[in-house]
Amino acid sequence: MDEIKRTDINELGEFGLIGHLTKDLAIINESTILGVGDDAAIIRNGEHLMLLTTDMLVEGIHFDLMYTPLKHLGYKSVIVNLSDIYAMNGRPEQITVSIALSNRFSVEAIEELYSGIKKACEVYGVDLVGGDTTSSNKGLIISITAIGKVEKDKVVRRSGAKKGDLICVSGDLGASYIGMQLMEREKQLFLSKSIPEFKADFEDQKYIVGRHLLPEARKDIIGFFNQQGIIPTSMIDISDGLSSELFHICKNSGVGAYIEEGNVPIHLETQQMAIKFNMDPITAALSGGEDYELLFTLDPGDVEKIRFQNDIAIIGEIVSKEDGVRLHTTGGNVHPIVAQGWKHFG
Amino acid sequence: MDEIKRTDINELGEFGLIGHLTKDLAIINESTILGVGDDAAIIRNGEHLMLLTTDMLVEGIHFDLMYTPLKHLGYKSVIVNLSDIYAMNGRPEQITVSIALSNRFSVEAIEELYSGIKKACEVYGVDLVGGDTTSSNKGLIISITAIGKVEKDKVVRRSGAKKGDLICVSGDLGASYIGMQLMEREKQLFLSKSIPEFKADFEDQKYIVGRHLLPEARKDIIGFFNQQGIIPTSMIDISDGLSSELFHICKNSGVGAYIEEGNVPIHLETQQMAIKFNMDPITAALSGGEDYELLFTLDPGDVEKIRFQNDIAIIGEIVSKEDGVRLHTTGGNVHPIVAQGWKHFG
Repeated sequence: MDEIKRTDINELGEFGLIGHLTKDLAIINESTILGVGDDAAIIRNGEHLMLLTTDMLVEGIHFDLMYTPLKHLGYKSVIVNLSDIYAMNGRPEQITVSIALSNRFSVEAIEELYSGIKKACEVYGVDLVGGDTTSSNKGLIISITAIGKVEKDKVVRRSGAKKGDLICVSGDLGASYIGMQLMEREKQLFLSKSIPEFKADFEDQKYIVGRHLLPEARKDIIGFFNQQGIIPTSMIDISDGLSSELFHICKNSGVGAYIEEGNVPIHLETQQMAIKFNMDPITAALSGGEDYELLFTLDPGDVEKIRFQNDIAIIGEIVSKEDGVRLHTTGGNVHPIVAQGWKHFG
Repeated sequence: MDEIKRTDINELGEFGLIGHLTKDLAIINESTILGVGDDAAIIRNGEHLMLLTTDMLVEGIHFDLMYTPLKHLGYKSVIVNLSDIYAMNGRPEQITVSIALSNRFSVEAIEELYSGIKKACEVYGVDLVGGDTTSSNKGLIISITAIGKVEKDKVVRRSGAKKGDLICVSGDLGASYIGMQLMEREKQLFLSKSIPEFKADFEDQKYIVGRHLLPEARKDIIGFFNQQGIIPTSMIDISDGLSSELFHICKNSGVGAYIEEGNVPIHLETQQMAIKFNMDPITAALSGGEDYELLFTLDPGDVEKIRFQNDIAIIGEIVSKEDGVRLHTTGGNVHPIVAQGWKHFG
């Protein structure tokens, strides 16, 4: 009998595993324009293009029900998918929601989860059109698929950045990660005592906690682009941290990037709490993730159009591939940036 | 403080829970033609209609890796979704695959799973265009979404059956359920002994075991309809057993049904094994599930077109709602049929 080879999934990591499994995929149907490898797949849809994306959230890996209200979780589960549609410069229109849950959840608990899902649908103008509900042996798993639409000449991929383009980011970064760290710390404190109910007071950290528990997708930024006639040369949403997303754009576009640390937008509350945790705030921005902001590149000719948009920061410039992906620190040094996505297989 | 109400999910069951959660869903987008409540959602897509369906399979609930090879599981996970697209008289074109898995799975194991997924894509001409891969604390969860296409005048829903229509079914029923029962029995026998490896011999039960482990979707029947110019008045795929699907058609169409037991196609191997299990074979066909055959209704004027199709059986007739859903047994009695879907929340 042949010896059976066993490679641990940790050796490849999440991106490595996906790349490995999808490397030899053939496309058969003429309706398939883009398969695996961007925020969403692109499918021909009459006059328009259809966008398709899916995400799976697993209890104990992506969320902790000790400090995550079910309604917030439902809302966020939708947001993470809509964000992928916006990252292609599209409009989400439909979602399907599949959940697996153990019988420790009551009907009322699931109603809470769904009330958040429905709220997000309402806020973002999306229809919930299907799904699946089943039981699990342990915990809660949520799998959502979002369908969107975009005009053929407006779709933005990760692959269009070119040397000289401005690197921009919406909102601010790192808050969600720091907010989660804070809640994790409070949880550990709680677990080490014998208090009957977990009830931490986050009144002074509302911003960072809110960014983690109840993020929004940047529909407004896509609306602004449309209004101003801006089509970014490349775009991605920041779910795994700025550095990881920057690497995706650079790899797919065949370019390098030069980032100015001082221009990376970080909220004051994020900065203060990062310092309390003995962490450099830029690390939270680069490696934190779950910001659901948009990272995009612009032709320099479009710079005038974003000048008065306070919620967009120009954080750097696309350079040639040979120059790599580097950070110019506020201290005056230049460091290579290292990609760090989520590594869940621990 | 208000008393918190806690309703156990078992009180509602799977269909009850889905119905409860989706009862007040509003449709906002003009592109959404049909949301929750059929085998697939219907979305406007230029000249065509787009079909969208999703299914989630959970280890320990939907499959048992003790007797399910991972390659077969991958294949079947795709089939269950494609079957829903065919049940709308559509052609599947794209799928997304999300998996959550614990680190007890090796890269080689996941490759096996994916080889089955890719094989199904190849056989059915479908493109794998995206997905998500993440870790779980326990077990394997597979969530697949399928996208399909159908011409506007050819889409078939559950709701079009009318009095006098013929009730037809493709293939044969109950085999998958009996095959699973057999493997479950062998597994229990194995667990009660101290043998190092589970290796049952199913040589004489190849058909029923194959029907459970490696079902096919009825692409051929949809091709036949197209060739013959047949458009069923209603259709559904048999995933939860004939009686459950029959109730869906009757409820959505506002009709009743009269089924002739002697006409329900049951494979000889299924009959023999059912009897060994002291089970009436018709019970396996009515309540077994996972057949992935098509249950459909035809205008009586189309009967000539299916006369020479050996793989389609006419099993009954649509009657008025007042007459209910009944079975005329081979013994000459008439019994009401009781709906029995999967009840996973146990």
